[in-house]
Parts: sequence; structure tokens; C-alpha cells
Amino acid sequence: MSTPSRSEATGDDPVYDLAADCTIEDVEEGACYRATVNGVVEYGVFVDLSASVSGLVHESNLDGSYDVGDELTVRLVDVRENGDLGFESIDAADRETVQIDHEPDITATDDLAERIGESITVEGELVQIKQTGGPTVFTLRDGVGIVPCAAFEAAGVRAYPGFELGDIVRVTGRVERREGALQLEVESLDAVDESDEIRERLDSALEEQATPHDVQPLVDWSALETMQDDLEAVATRLRRAVLENRPIRIRHHADGDGMCASIPVTLALERFIEEVHGDPSAARHLLKRLPSKAPYYEMEDVTRDLNFALGDRERHGQQLPLLVMLDNGSTEEDVPAYEALAQYDIPIVAVDHHHPDPDAVDGLLAEHVNPYLHGEDYRVTTGMLCVELARMIHPEITDELTHVPAVAGLTDRSEADAMTDYLALAREAGYDEDDLQAIGDALDYAAHWLRYSAGESLLTDVLGVDAADDSRHDDLVEFFAERAARDTDEQLDAAMPHVESATLDNGADLYRIDVERHAHRFTYPAPGKTTGAIHDRKVADSDGPVVTVGYGPDFAVLRSDGVRLDIPQMVEELEAETDGGVSGGGHLVVGSIKFVKGMREAVLDALETKMGAAEIDEELGSASVAGFED
Amino acid sequence: MSTPSRSEATGDDPVYDLAADCTIEDVEEGACYRATVNGVVEYGVFVDLSASVSGLVHESNLDGSYDVGDELTVRLVDVRENGDLGFESIDAADRETVQIDHEPDITATDDLAERIGESITVEGELVQIKQTGGPTVFTLRDGVGIVPCAAFEAAGVRAYPGFELGDIVRVTGRVERREGALQLEVESLDAVDESDEIRERLDSALEEQATPHDVQPLVDWSALETMQDDLEAVATRLRRAVLENRPIRIRHHADGDGMCASIPVTLALERFIEEVHGDPSAARHLLKRLPSKAPYYEMEDVTRDLNFALGDRERHGQQLPLLVMLDNGSTEEDVPAYEALAQYDIPIVAVDHHHPDPDAVDGLLAEHVNPYLHGEDYRVTTGMLCVELARMIHPEITDELTHVPAVAGLTDRSEADAMTDYLALAREAGYDEDDLQAIGDALDYAAHWLRYSAGESLLTDVLGVDAADDSRHDDLVEFFAERAARDTDEQLDAAMPHVESATLDNGADLYRIDVERHAHRFTYPAPGKTTGAIHDRKVADSDGPVVTVGYGPDFAVLRSDGVRLDIPQMVEELEAETDGGVSGGGHLVVGSIKFVKGMREAVLDALETKMGAAEIDEELGSASVAGFED
Amino acid sequence: MSTPSRSEATGDDPVYDLAADCTIEDVEEGACYRATVNGVVEYGVFVDLSASVSGLVHESNLDGSYDVGDELTVRLVDVRENGDLGFESIDAADRETVQIDHEPDITATDDLAERIGESITVEGELVQIKQTGGPTVFTLRDGVGIVPCAAFEAAGVRAYPGFELGDIVRVTGRVERREGALQLEVESLDAVDESDEIRERLDSALEEQATPHDVQPLVDWSALETMQDDLEAVATRLRRAVLENRPIRIRHHADGDGMCASIPVTLALERFIEEVHGDPSAARHLLKRLPSKAPYYEMEDVTRDLNFALGDRERHGQQLPLLVMLDNGSTEEDVPAYEALAQYDIPIVAVDHHHPDPDAVDGLLAEHVNPYLHGEDYRVTTGMLCVELARMIHPEITDELTHVPAVAGLTDRSEADAMTDYLALAREAGYDEDDLQAIGDALDYAAHWLRYSAGESLLTDVLGVDAADDSRHDDLVEFFAERAARDTDEQLDAAMPHVESATLDNGADLYRIDVERHAHRFTYPAPGKTTGAIHDRKVADSDGPVVTVGYGPDFAVLRSDGVRLDIPQMVEELEAETDGGVSGGGHLVVGSIKFVKGMREAVLDALETKMGAAEIDEELGSASVAGFED
Repeated sequence: MSTPSRSEATGDDPVYDLAADCTIEDVEEGACYRATVNGVVEYGVFVDLSASVSGLVHESNLDGSYDVGDELTVRLVDVRENGDLGFESIDAADRETVQIDHEPDITATDDLAERIGESITVEGELVQIKQTGGPTVFTLRDGVGIVPCAAFEAAGVRAYPGFELGDIVRVTGRVERREGALQLEVESLDAVDESDEIRERLDSALEEQATPHDVQPLVDWSALETMQDDLEAVATRLRRAVLENRPIRIRHHADGDGMCASIPVTLALERFIEEVHGDPSAARHLLKRLPSKAPYYEMEDVTRDLNFALGDRERHGQQLPLLVMLDNGSTEEDVPAYEALAQYDIPIVAVDHHHPDPDAVDGLLAEHVNPYLHGEDYRVTTGMLCVELARMIHPEITDELTHVPAVAGLTDRSEADAMTDYLALAREAGYDEDDLQAIGDALDYAAHWLRYSAGESLLTDVLGVDAADDSRHDDLVEFFAERAARDTDEQLDAAMPHVESATLDNGADLYRIDVERHAHRFTYPAPGKTTGAIHDRKVADSDGPVVTVGYGPDFAVLRSDGVRLDIPQMVEELEAETDGGVSGGGHLVVGSIKFVKGMREAVLDALETKMGAAEIDEELGSASVAGFED
Repeated sequence: MSTPSRSEATGDDPVYDLAADCTIEDVEEGACYRATVNGVVEYGVFVDLSASVSGLVHESNLDGSYDVGDELTVRLVDVRENGDLGFESIDAADRETVQIDHEPDITATDDLAERIGESITVEGELVQIKQTGGPTVFTLRDGVGIVPCAAFEAAGVRAYPGFELGDIVRVTGRVERREGALQLEVESLDAVDESDEIRERLDSALEEQATPHDVQPLVDWSALETMQDDLEAVATRLRRAVLENRPIRIRHHADGDGMCASIPVTLALERFIEEVHGDPSAARHLLKRLPSKAPYYEMEDVTRDLNFALGDRERHGQQLPLLVMLDNGSTEEDVPAYEALAQYDIPIVAVDHHHPDPDAVDGLLAEHVNPYLHGEDYRVTTGMLCVELARMIHPEITDELTHVPAVAGLTDRSEADAMTDYLALAREAGYDEDDLQAIGDALDYAAHWLRYSAGESLLTDVLGVDAADDSRHDDLVEFFAERAARDTDEQLDAAMPHVESATLDNGADLYRIDVERHAHRFTYPAPGKTTGAIHDRKVADSDGPVVTVGYGPDFAVLRSDGVRLDIPQMVEELEAETDGGVSGGGHLVVGSIKFVKGMREAVLDALETKMGAAEIDEELGSASVAGFED
Repeated sequence: MSTPSRSEATGDDPVYDLAADCTIEDVEEGACYRATVNGVVEYGVFVDLSASVSGLVHESNLDGSYDVGDELTVRLVDVRENGDLGFESIDAADRETVQIDHEPDITATDDLAERIGESITVEGELVQIKQTGGPTVFTLRDGVGIVPCAAFEAAGVRAYPGFELGDIVRVTGRVERREGALQLEVESLDAVDESDEIRERLDSALEEQATPHDVQPLVDWSALETMQDDLEAVATRLRRAVLENRPIRIRHHADGDGMCASIPVTLALERFIEEVHGDPSAARHLLKRLPSKAPYYEMEDVTRDLNFALGDRERHGQQLPLLVMLDNGSTEEDVPAYEALAQYDIPIVAVDHHHPDPDAVDGLLAEHVNPYLHGEDYRVTTGMLCVELARMIHPEITDELTHVPAVAGLTDRSEADAMTDYLALAREAGYDEDDLQAIGDALDYAAHWLRYSAGESLLTDVLGVDAADDSRHDDLVEFFAERAARDTDEQLDAAMPHVESATLDNGADLYRIDVERHAHRFTYPAPGKTTGAIHDRKVADSDGPVVTVGYGPDFAVLRSDGVRLDIPQMVEELEAETDGGVSGGGHLVVGSIKFVKGMREAVLDALETKMGAAEIDEELGSASVAGFED
């Protein structure tokens, strides 16, 4: 505790007895101190308050006479500009004596590099406590940075067991370089009295640092403007997680738009982490991007995510992560997984452009960005939103990303007006529309073969960000895009002869194909995308409304141009009518359903009847279908 | 070698020539030594036997006269209380001269912490020899602990290549702290002459330390008492493995009882390892728990286990592991896997409560605990047994485990009389029967989604052991149990309308369902458990005997209440009659069979005939079915 | 830069001003230098050119008089045998002054062990640049070895950012031992003027070191002789990769011959890596062996390989790898994968004995060894070739491998004349034909259960190389071989009753079996091998030509004895006739085809017609079928 300020030091002030290591920082004008005479001169006595705090009691302020070594009580009455201290002797009777420990200079964590080898003190919040086979490593965050503090009790024995995550502490130790990174070799680790005050200061510093950069959207578009605040809230959460040393786990849709969303955000976070932690390997421990095979957050995925998070907490003393859902996460199907995370109070943010169920998910999401919540729709793709998000996190990334929204738009068939501007922006970066389409196709193709692997380096090269070698990027995209086209042609060569056609009651053309029997399995394109490609060919050959159904033993994929299907409604009715274990989802013109194998015929027959009763609406196109094909 | 004791030093004793570093520890009253005069005084000469061993030859004991530097032979005749030595000069003629090396003080490995920076000597058995890119690390076990000893020959070059695992050695080196753990920086590593003696001493120390704690069973139950000795033998093996630095690999049934068995044993071993090795990370290298998807030890699993073990031996110089089978391992189906391990003399212990084939497995098992071997049955669940086993390994764990046997019993539907006591015990720990059932359901649900992952942290939280946060545990269990119930309801909603019924020849009700066609696939509950849930509903609605068959393309799951099936017998007959590639197993009332797809109808028809010919026995219930459902 | 040689030092030579640390190595007779007088004697003045370079200007060679400290210009006229230098003073007017830096002694990387603690200089090419959380580690290769050089700029900050992979540099630093391996603590890292010269020297040193050992083939066989040069070219590539610190990734066929090929090459490379890097753990970072499930390089595999390679480059600064295809890689089906690697200029070498498509692959392969390219055929198995290859890489391995070609021959049913010699060689090593066949069966069985895992240690023990414990090896082989036989019998017991027979139009016996319906799935043997075993039994029972077709929902495996099938041709025709999505490949007597499920009947019917129209050729046997069974 520091000496109270003068305003309080009136009347029967206590007498402070300074520890030997106290400095001038620990004294306050007007306060009373225990002093020892160390010199007697004609005009008074010199007194010591501590090893380094001394001054004069002028004879005019002195009661009685003293010899060297005598103790007396003084009040500090004068601090001159040159640092000399002037005291008066006072009567200590009836005064309480208070021990004062030296209040050390607090060093900011970003000044440690210049203090190597010195013993210094830092103050802040414990954000990680990792027990190693040797020391216990306390990671401390002050307002400006993060530093690991190694405390050795005995091999593998927890040092300072009374402290836990979130505590505000003061650590004194020697600044050392270990594996090149800076750390403190702990000499003492103590609780801080003014922890509320410090926490408040840390919080406000954190808040300030977490505030995202104020970036102008890449294109002038009202849709982006309406979501700017929502995106800033997400950017703040993400920056805050980095500053708090909290791990971030990104789950994203494993398609083109999902890649255009997640890769920029991952890159921006990597760079921000490196900036904050000064350690290029920190991102490996703090950031993980994982594709989801399903278009929602499956129970299997969340169970594993949870188990990993708990394991990292136990083994490395990490905080539980912040979960980020990209191009996924807005629907009722995500609820069970979200509820599982809620058991551990793991916060979740979602940026998605699929039709949301805000009633179902909003109670479980810390932030939820979705164009439908603002009267917009899927045409604002998640990739478009996430490029803005990435720029808010780390604006320097902008130049690498200017073509990404256009890729996202093309791969998700966005018919947004802003596509014109995005395409122009991409053109400035050297990409014409065919190039961008090829990037989208290549992303999709590479992601297919990478399956559950995130494919960091390869996909970054395909997308053409993170300073990729340009010629390599071009060749790679061309190669993958060509392979994708060739494999799609081969698949359709096998499938097209087996597409059956019929006319629905409403006059629309229906095309049906058993993709399990008439398409190659376990290859590119998968059943959903195969169905989409067949539909596109049929639409191109037709004038009227077209519906395509690609089915397997226990699933069907639906695509419509010109028929208003309302698939969620259909699913509900089909289940009620058939008891076929029907579930699924989608939009007006695209969707997928599942059922039990044995009820396939019943379900498909009922589905056909329903589609025949649906309203014709020639305006409706099956755009933005990519998200539902897998 | 030390100087022989006095009793042997008579007649023509040898003359010992002490090495320069010998100390007073190396001499023995009555023995003869080569000495050098280092001082001549009035009353005799002072002689040196080594740098630190000196004394007086009184003139009364001295033949002839000597100058400084002269050599003579002396006998040690007097060791005074103050440490002064008195000699007499003797005639060395015809005496053999024996070189004596300094016999160093042996430091116990648990005293190293106080000797940091000193050069000391330890003695014991080499239990691991790991070649790193730098030094060779010899791990030495003495009677009380384990210490790594780093010997540097050249980068990556094996030091002391003459030594191998199991050798008894003496290592002299400096005690250093490395990554916080203690190790010796080897100065010398030598064979020990008295290795048999030391090995005997180590063995008896090991035996003593390996002896499990003498714990009173949690409940007073004769079934446990009869198996107490068997469990102690397993506990001894496990403790011994830890003390010998031998890795332990646990394979267990991936169901509720398997979790209730394996998690307590894993926790107890983790704590015992930490106690022995003083290193919280040691358990990561020495202990691995793995769920088995099949209800036996598959060839695929054992091939991988073996390959990992051989790899760890090669890369880390580890011993081959001890394999522990829990809630699995008693049956003939485990034999091929056991035989694979036998090729490498890997010992196996099994604790199981499934119907055993002792003739098939006992020759391959080092220990085999199974209630059937003592006239008991499946009602003594593996979880009940393993809680006792865990307590024998590390009794301090008891308080965390008192509710676990009740969970194990409920999840395996044990109708043991002791369930009353177990439930009472759980009640004392704050769990009523619904809570325990919910924990079982939650374990099962979480294990389903974790698939091949052990799910350490998550399942430990679900089971509510290892100091889990109570409120979190409760919420988590409730959440998972509810999800399990909801998913089961959804599955049955799809399936129940497609259950076909018939009456068997013996009058029992037969229910059949194609779970591949009329249940959702790749979800919870899986086909076996789905069949079980259907059966339970049918039994609840019926008075008479009920048999349920859930079948897929190449498998069927059987459940009976009131019909005595003898499934192993049926399998044998079905294969003989149909050539359908029929295999499988089970009990009287529960089992599963496999066959080739093309013979399904023939096999199922024949099965139905056999079930119709089976004896009705209203007493028989399909309890403990959990183990066979997957 | 060093002082130019004398031949250039005529007329208006420049005056060299030596840096203080220059040594006698930096001066050249006849060249001119700036000097300082440090002593005046009767017969002349002593001058300093640098701290350590001094000499006499004899009065006879001296113009004018000088005091200590005076500067003058001198020419070095005399270097005596004893090292004394003689100078003449000259007129410096109009001469250009050139600064000369000290040209340090260059230490060879294989001399570092004797220089620990000293500051030395090495020169060579940067072959890896890894940014750690601490220093930047530059790995330097000179003509004789490789050394890591750690340069610290700031924690995690790239030191010497101007340098990149492939640059020729000079590094001065202290030799340190870190984790036991040697490294330089960088004091300076500079570009080298004579980099072309050095690169040339490095290249020729590399070329020399990369040259494989000149080994005599194990048996006297013209087939091996014709391929000797090709194999040497591959050996050179592999040794060169090790010397250049380039990672090597081996993809091989996951059958017996593939194991006999890849295990010896892997072992030889491991030992060569250890020799070059002096670090037994280096092979873990530089060498990876991976089985391929398909008989060609699948797009899924290459996508992962590529992503790993890019990740290792990014994270560890590694070069992109050299890809090695063994017992795979010669066919058109490998082209897409090869093209993917070509995007990154990753070199590929293939050693295969399957029928090659040189037109398709040769443009993509750096080296291609295949007996068909030399008028030989599959009877020269890849295992036979790779044993020679392994010996070229590291001849000391020979004794461990003498039985391997015979195993390879038996497992691939090679009828080569050289088999007699190979069997004799194996007999000398203690293996009779039954033993070798058992090893082949055991390899196949173990590989089946290991699936995607390389199974290093286990398969090395089965194959009996790398100093395996002999008794263990024998028992292990016997055990696995017996299990393989037993499992095959069980599979055939189920399958044989369901084999249908017919007579083809050409009179050959046709056997058909639905292996999906009438064989166990997910067990050993898999469908292809099951079909082969059935075929073998049928051939044994028959005199005439026999064709066997094992089919599943979307595939068929073909085997013929006595009918010339030309399977690639059939595949092309089947696809043209049926639109069944037919693809596949094979030889005259063995092959496999895929089709879409729904066209199975049409494809199989057409296939039967074609087989009935094929030519009978009693000489044709379905040997070497192993490679196509999976």
C-alpha cells in the first residue's frame, strides 16, 4: 500500500514506518513518518526514513535535541524542486503506526526488452496458469501486453497455489530471455490491494485496445452499412480474445464462401496475435480453423471441440475458447451444439448469411451477424462480410483481400447489385470474372479433397492471399479449376442418361435422379453438387419452371427455378404425413432432406405431390445454392 | 569393492592399496594397508593411506625407522571415538596386494533435491535408455524412486553402449535441474559387482512399494470379498508397472460401465505416477486410455497398439507396455489379439464381467478378474470392481468415487442385492437414483459422439470425479441426458411404426425391425441401442415373453425377456445350417450376430425357428444388455 | 574480398588498406599496402599492416626517414620461409586506395566438434530458414555437412531478412552445443562475393557425395543390369536430397511387394541421413513413408501431401519435398496427382513394375524406373529393384536385405528365372521358400490392419530387417501368416457356396460372386484378395481356361487363367456401350473396374459377352495379381 495522499493526512494521522527499500515514490507531503537521525548539524538534524529517503529537520522545526541513531517522528512538510525533503518533528503520542512496504515501480510489459537481466515488477491479470514438469508459468496481462512469468517451487509442483485465472497480481522478477522470448523469473508474486482499481484500468485499456479499426467498407453499399455495427461488435470480441490470451476456434462451412470468409479472418487474427504477443508461434496455440462437413454444427464436432478445449485447459492452463461460426451457425440445427458449449459458458459469435432462426439461436450467441436480421438476404455473402471483419481486426491486410468478396459472390451466385463494384475492385487487382470463378471452383475442389483438414497453406495459395507467389497462384487455380470441370463432366456423363423427367401438377418440369446409383461415389463432385450441376444444365435447356431432385437411399437434394418450394414447411408436413423420420432444411428454391431408408418411396412420392401444388414464380432462381449442396 | 570386514581379516590377510580418493568409509579395523610416511615425530610416524585417510603408527608398534616418503605396510588396530586412527607396522612378505577403489556414498533418489549442484552417486536398475539428438538419457530406478541420467558422448551418439535395459549400474554425476525436473549429468556409469545383491534389494523394495493399499470394500458384499485377492493382484501389477517406468495401455469397452471402470483406474494411476515420478507430465508418456468400438479386442486395434508400442520403444527407449483390458477381454474373441501381443511378451491383465471363456484366455492373461470365475455373474459390474481397484492403487481417491459403482450398476442394469447399498452410498454423496441414471445416459451419449477419442476431460466432468466443478457437472449431465432422451425419442418415432410383430412357436411375442431401413443412421442411438429401446417399450406393454430382433444388411441384435436363447449355441447351429458366414456371441437373453449380406433372409428365418423352439422362462430378463448393444 | 593475386598487381596497382583483424592470409606478395611505423631500428623500420601483419622495410628499400606512428605506403617484396615479411616503401601518389576486410579462415562443418566455444566462420548455401519464437535458424550446407546457425534479432523477429533459401553466405559465430547438437551462435552473416565460385564448388562436392555407391547386383541377372543406370539416377536424387536437407516423402503400394520395396529404401535413407546430419532424430523431420490404399496416387492423397509440404515450408522453413513413388506411379491414373505437384515444381521419381504409360507420365517424372521400359515385365518386382536401390544409397545394409527380393517375388508371384538365385540367396540367410511365403502373407495381413498407418516398427520386424530379434521375427511371421490363412479360410467358407458358374462363349469357365453379399465386409481378406483366393481354388480344380469375377455394388475384380482379356480395351468399350461410368485398369489377365451402381447388371452382362469373345491362350496365368487386388 502506498502512503495515503495528503488530503487524508490530517488530524491524528497515522505514523508510517517505511520498509528499508522504500523510495521517494512511497512518501507523500503532509504525512507522518518514523525517522532515524543520521547526522547532527548546526542548523538541525538529518534523518533517514529508509535506505534512500532522507532529509533535514531544520532546528526551527525540531523539538528537543538528538544524537545520531535517535528515533523520532516527523512530518514531511516540504519537497523541493531539487528533490530535497524538509521535515518537522511531531509528537507521535496516540498515533497509530502503519508499516509501509515499498511500492515498486511498475514496468509496462512492452518495456521489458530494455530491462533484460534486471529485476523489475509488473502488475496485471493472470490469463493463463500452466504447470510444467518444472516451473509453474503464470501468464500476466497488463494494459499493454502479455508476459509469461515462471515460478519454481519444486519440479512439477504448483507454485503459488492460492492464485487462479483472473486474479490481479504483482510479480517481481528478473527479465530473462528464454527460447528468445522474454519472460520473468519470478522472485515474488503477490495479491494486489487495489485490485478493483487495477482491474478497472486493465479493462479500460483492454477496451481501448480491443476497439477495432475504423475502416471504410470496400464498396459503397447500404447493406454493409447496416451491418457495420454488428461486425464491429464481432471484431471487438475477437481482438479482445487475443488481448486476453483466450484461444479462438473457428468453425466454418467447407465451401467456397466459407473459405472466403474464414481465411481472411484467420489471417487477420494471425497477424494481430503476432503483433500482441511478439511471437510468431503464438497463433498456433491460440487459433484453430476447422471446416465443418455438415452445413451446421454437429454434435460430433462440438463434443470434440469441447473435449479439446477442456484438455487444453487442463494440460496448458488455457482459458476456454471463443467459438466463431462463419457461413454457418444461424439455424435451429445449431442449437444442440450451442447448448453443449453453454454448459461451460463458452461464448459463441456467428457471421452467417443462411436464413436464420434468431428465436432459436440468439439466446445462445454473444453476437450474431446475418443480413436477414437487417432486411437483407443471402446475396450479402459471408465472405463479403468477413473481408470487412478481417479489415477491422487488422486493416493492413486490405490490399491482399480486395478480390475476395467477388470470389465469394460468384461462388455463392450472389446477384447483389454490389457485385458490379466488387468485380471492378477485383479487376483493379488483376482478376477478371473468369479468374474469380476459377478461384471459386478451385477452392471448392481443393476443399473437397482436403476433407476434414483445414488446408491452411494450400487454400491460402488458391485464394491468392498472404503474399502468395503470383505465378504459382495462377497456375494452381487453373489446374484445380480444370480438374474440377473435367471431373464434373465425367460425373455428368455417367449421370445425365439416367435423369428421369416428369411434369408436375403445376406444370413445372421435374427431373429426378438416383445419385447413389447413377453417379460415382466418393469422388468430386459429391451428390449435392452433382444434383446442382444437373439442374443447371436442365435450366439452361428450358424456358419454363424446373425442379430437380437428386436422391440417395436416405436423402434428397432439391433445386428449383421458378417454383416456390418453402422447404422447411414441406419437411414438417412430410414428417407428419409419412412418419419417415424426415428432417432437413433450406430456402424457397434449394434444400436438402433426410429420411429413413425404408420410407424413401413414400417420402419422394409425397414430396412430388407437394412440389406439384407449389406456386409458380418465374422470378425465383436457385442462386446461392452452394451452401446446401453438400 | 569395500574392504572385507574384520572377521575375515586374519592370518595372511591381503594388503589393501587404497585409491587416492578413498575415505574412512573404505577402511576396516583389523585390515592391512599400504601406507606412506608423511611425518616423523618423537613418538612414531604419521602415515597416509589415501588423500584423506591418515593416522599414527606409535613407536611401540613400529618396526625400524622411517623417513617422510617411505612406504610401509600397516594394520589398522584402533579407531578412536574422535576418528583418529592407530596403526601397527607389519611384515608385508607373502601377502597379496589388493587395489581398493573408493566405495562412494550412495545417495537415494529421493534425496536429490537437497544435493543440487553436488556430485553424487546413485545405484539401481536401468529402466529406460533414450537416445536424444544430444545426450543419451539413462533412467535409473533405485528402491525409492526414479531419476534420469544424461550422458553425453557426442551429439546423437549412444553413450555407454555396453549397457542395456535391466542392467544394475552405479552412476556418479552432478545433480542438475533441467526444465525444472532433477537429473544427473553423468560423470561415470559403471557396472556393479554386487548386482545380484542389489537387484534382490531393489526387487524386494519394489515388491513392498507395489503392494496395494489394504482398503475395505465400499460396501459389505461377499461377491467383492471373493474377488479381493484377484483385484489386489491386478493392483500390484499396475503399481509395479508405474514403479518400473513401464507404460500402461488401457483398452476398455466404450459404454457406461466401461467408463465407470476405466476412468477411476486411470485417475488413480495418474495420481500414483505423479507421486512416484514427481512430474505431472509423466502420466502423459506412461498412461494411455483408449475406448474399443467393438465389444472385444479387434485385430485392427491390437495391430495399432503393437505398432505404437514398438515405435515408442525405438524412439524413446521405452519398455513395452502392460495392457489392461477393462469391461472387455474375457472372451474367445479376444484370443487373436492376445496372441499378437504374446509375440512380444507383452503382459495383459483383464477385469471384465462378461461371460468368460477361461479356457481360451487364461493362458494368455497375466491376471484375469471376472465374477463368473467365482460363481458370481454380470451383476457385479466392471465399474464396481474397478472402483475397488482404483482405491487399492491410490486410496485417497475414494471420496470422489463413492457414487460410481451405482452409476455402473444402473447403466448395466445390475440387479445385484448390493445395489441397495451402492445407491445409499451415492445418496450420501448427493446423488439420487435419477441423477445416477442421468449420469449413465450422459456418459453413453458423450462417448457415442467422441467415437475413438478417449475424451478425458469431458467424460471426467460427466462422471463427476477428479474435483469437477459441481454445478458444471450437474448441468452437463442434465444436458447430455436430455439430449440422449430426445434423440432416442426421435429415433423411435421413425422406427416404431415399422416394427413388425409375430408370434413364435413357443408363444412368445416376436418383434422385428430393419434398423438400417427404418432408423436414422450415423446418429444416436446406434442400431444396437435402438433395438434395446424398442424392446424395452414392447416389454413394458406386454405380459408374456418378448423377443426383439433389430437387423441390418449383415447383422442382427437380439433381446429377450422370458425366452432362454443360448445365443452362442444358436450361432453355431445357424452357421452349420445356412453357410451364411454366421458369427457372434452373447448370453441367454442378449446377443448380436453377423452374417454375409446375401444370406440374411435364410439366417433370420432359421433364427426365428430356433427362437420359437427355445424354452420359456419368465424369470429371465434382458438386463445388463448395454454391453452387447453396440 | 581478398587481395588480388600478384599477376594483377603491376603498374599503378591500388594501395590496400587492411582492416585491423586481417591476417597474413589476406596479403599477397607484390601487392601494395598502407602501413604504420611501429619501430625504428638501425637497419630500417618495422611497420604494421594490421594488428597481426608486420614486417621490415630495410633501409635499402626505404625512401626518407620515419618516426614511430608515421604512415607510409609499402609493397610486399619478400615472404621468407620463416614467415618474416620484407617490404619496400613506394610512392602512393595517384594510386587508388582499396579497403581490405579480413578474409577469415573457413572452417569445414565436419570440424566443428573440435571448435566448441570458439568463434569460427563457415561458408555455404542456405538450405533451411526457420523462424522460431526466438532466433531465426539458418541451416547452412557446405561441401561436407550441414550446420544450423541461430541468429537472434528480437524474439520471433526474422534476422537478416535480406537472405533467402539458396543464397551463398558466410557465417561467423561461436560453436555451441544445444540439446547436444552443434550449432553456431551467429555473430555475422554476410553475402559472399565469389558466390558463383563457391556454388560451383558446393555443387561439385554435392555431386561427388551424391554419387551412389557402386554395388554389384545381388544376383547375376541381365534384367537388373539394364536398369542399373536408371536406379543409380534415382539413388543419386535421393542421396542429393539428403545432402541438400530436402525432405523426402515416399508413397508406396500397400501390398507385400510395396513393403519389400519401401522398407529397404526407407532404412537405407534413415542411415544415410544419420550419417550426414549426425543426428538420429533428423530422419523424423526429413523422411516420411506412407502407404497408398489405391493402386495409384489419388487426388485426396496428393492434396494432403501438398498441404503438409506447404505447411512445413511455412512453419519450419523446409524446402518442398522430393516425392518417391514405389510399386506405384507408372500409370496414366497418376497424372492428375503429378500435375498437382508440378504446380509447385516438386520433383517426383517412380520405381514401379506395373504396366507403364510412359507417354502420360514421363513428362512429369524426374526419373522413371520400370522393367517394361527395357523390354522386361512385372516379373522384375519393385522389391527386387528397391533392394538394389537401397544398397546404392547405403551399401552396409546389404546383409539385412538378402532375403527380401525373394519375398517380393513370391508375394507378387514372379516367375522370373532369377527367382532361383534369389531363393538360394534367401536360403543362405536361413529362409526356405515356406518361410518367405509366410513373410509375404504376414506383411500383407499386418498391412491390412494397419490401414493408413505406415507401421514402421512392426513391419520392419515382420520383414526381418533392421536387426530384428530373430526369434521374435520368426514367431511374429508365423503368427500373422497363420491368422491370414485362417481368416482366408473363414472368408472362403462363407463365399464358396455362393460362387455361380457358367460357360463363356469361348468355352472358358466363368465364376461369378457378389463379394459384397457373400463375403464378410471390413475384414481380412478384402474383396479383391477374396476374389483372387476363389480364383486360385477354381484354377486348381480345373484343366481348362478359367475367368473369375468378384463384384460389388459398383466394382468388379477380374482374374483370368488362359483367357487373354486386355482389360484397358474392355473398359473403354464398356463405357462406350453402356454409359455406365466405367473406369479401371489392369493387364491381360488381371484388373479391376468401377461403374455406377445403377448400371451394374448392364456392365456385368456386357463384360461377360466380351470375355466370351476373348482369345483363349492357355499360356497366360494370372500371376502378379497382388497389385490389383485391392
